[in-house]
Amino acid sequence: MSRPVRVAILGATGAVGKAMIETLLRRKFPFTTLKLLASARSAGQVVHIQGVPYTVEEATPESFADIDVALFSAGGDISLRFAKEAVARGALVIDNTSAYRMDKSVPLIVPEVNADAFSTHQGIIANPNCSTIQMVVALAPLHRRYHIRRIVVSTYQAASGAGERAIEELRETSRAILDGRAPEPSLLPVAKLKNHYPLGFNVIPQIDVFEENGFTKEEMKMVRETHKILGDESIAVTPTAVRVPVVYGHSEAVYIETELPFVVDDVRTLLRDAKGVTLQDDPTRQEYPQPYFAAGHFDVFVGRIRRDLYAENGLNLWIVSDNILKGAAYNAVQIAELWLRQEGITA
Amino acid sequence: MSRPVRVAILGATGAVGKAMIETLLRRKFPFTTLKLLASARSAGQVVHIQGVPYTVEEATPESFADIDVALFSAGGDISLRFAKEAVARGALVIDNTSAYRMDKSVPLIVPEVNADAFSTHQGIIANPNCSTIQMVVALAPLHRRYHIRRIVVSTYQAASGAGERAIEELRETSRAILDGRAPEPSLLPVAKLKNHYPLGFNVIPQIDVFEENGFTKEEMKMVRETHKILGDESIAVTPTAVRVPVVYGHSEAVYIETELPFVVDDVRTLLRDAKGVTLQDDPTRQEYPQPYFAAGHFDVFVGRIRRDLYAENGLNLWIVSDNILKGAAYNAVQIAELWLRQEGITA
Repeated sequence: MSRPVRVAILGATGAVGKAMIETLLRRKFPFTTLKLLASARSAGQVVHIQGVPYTVEEATPESFADIDVALFSAGGDISLRFAKEAVARGALVIDNTSAYRMDKSVPLIVPEVNADAFSTHQGIIANPNCSTIQMVVALAPLHRRYHIRRIVVSTYQAASGAGERAIEELRETSRAILDGRAPEPSLLPVAKLKNHYPLGFNVIPQIDVFEENGFTKEEMKMVRETHKILGDESIAVTPTAVRVPVVYGHSEAVYIETELPFVVDDVRTLLRDAKGVTLQDDPTRQEYPQPYFAAGHFDVFVGRIRRDLYAENGLNLWIVSDNILKGAAYNAVQIAELWLRQEGITA
Repeated sequence: MSRPVRVAILGATGAVGKAMIETLLRRKFPFTTLKLLASARSAGQVVHIQGVPYTVEEATPESFADIDVALFSAGGDISLRFAKEAVARGALVIDNTSAYRMDKSVPLIVPEVNADAFSTHQGIIANPNCSTIQMVVALAPLHRRYHIRRIVVSTYQAASGAGERAIEELRETSRAILDGRAPEPSLLPVAKLKNHYPLGFNVIPQIDVFEENGFTKEEMKMVRETHKILGDESIAVTPTAVRVPVVYGHSEAVYIETELPFVVDDVRTLLRDAKGVTLQDDPTRQEYPQPYFAAGHFDVFVGRIRRDLYAENGLNLWIVSDNILKGAAYNAVQIAELWLRQEGITA
């Protein structure tokens, strides 16, 4: 195709921004222009992409005047400041922050699950929260077939979900503890709050701030976004979101109850055939997903599938995926690929 | 008191054995003799206790001839070999292995929960699995008052639960990954099985071997032992047991449903007043249990208490405790203290 495909990445110097660049390349996304944008603080940095140096520019409304698709991952406040400006200038905004996710006029898309929502966009499409994305990729095929009524999920979330500085803090606190020094956390679990706890050799049952109901904002995202993506607000979701000392890859212990009965082997077949899912489920061979091995891959890995011992139609699963890729950058690029398809552009 | 209190520890050189010695001292357990026993391989090692050198002896049936209370923590096969020999020679055996836990003639005791079962022993008392102990300490008061019908629990278990070599392997694989070297695991998740995975910066959803039903033995212990300790086989327990890169302290995300309605503030009061529980539950002050801070303490820490968003009588909790202390050594010493009380011996 000869038409230009002009892509911008806002937040290009962050963990997700860098993964977006990498993912565009891995997916051979047919961009003709790639504009890297960031705040004034990061402007001027040079990023090398396939040997070509790209200078990161400071984002302004005019930055988007010649852009077709803009991937946003620079924080919710930045999205609120620039998304409508970019849309007004003709760009499609794919926003990785939580700014627009629950906006009724904004589709919230996981391409394997609800790609059909793409056509309803009015310029902005939201990329869901990482822990929600991997859960719905695995559960949507089961929901379609058996109607999920109940989800109880406990997460084991990686440091990278809190950004590059959190990865650094995990490394530093881990090294301190290994060396017998006192760890000195200053960021996790929530930078802007008063108390900081070491993540090295620890687990922290707080991700994001608490809401009035005693659940964290991260946990409530898993409730609300799951409802919106699956288009079903009747599913009872009970989340506990926990940060663990892992660099890349979120894991989730998930218990579900379905309305319709299932045969466990059919569940395995459904998941083996599901788009975006890799089944890793053979206890006799100690085969099950682990974040250390899922890191760097695009798929959602599912294993430990077993019928509940008590509940009729109760099922347990273990779901792992790279939170920076499928949980953020790759899902955003997949949404951009829906745009390519709509425009009739082939890679 | 002038009567002799002769204590033996079998498996004195292991992680739990050492913690047993330490716990006897911290509790000022009034022993007059302390005999340290181990396999032939470890015999001859010298352990210093409050400045006094103790030589570890090789265990034989005759080792127990002059012993009142023997704490066993040297593996299930060793317990099967020596427990009845020790009982025949007049010792009370408190066994930390799984050898006798489900034996109907052996009480399985968590002193805060079912100390009354002590009187039924026939020479052997079993110490439950670590992940079960901390869960029932927190749940028993709620079960008594509100009748728990359903438990869904996901664990975050420390390396020390798999012994001292597992702690070493966690440290080595962590350091390798920090230094950019390939980790070389040879022990976890299950030494005798074929595949070994790094625990450093990873989570492994396998603890112990798999049973036919797809659950691991560790998970099934949480079902069966919970039933036995609470004396109620009707509770539906759904466990997922996961190893995380933590040295000491198991964490558990627990969802329960009760038969009777509750007020959340009453739940907090019940737990605040419960023996062996420390309530750490103030989201506004970011107060919740974490293994890094629970390590070295005897209590079970409970927080993140919140009513479920959907289920009537549904409640969520986060339970953390030192798996080597309350999960093993301290619970065993508490059982020995029940014997002291029966004998009318005061510390």
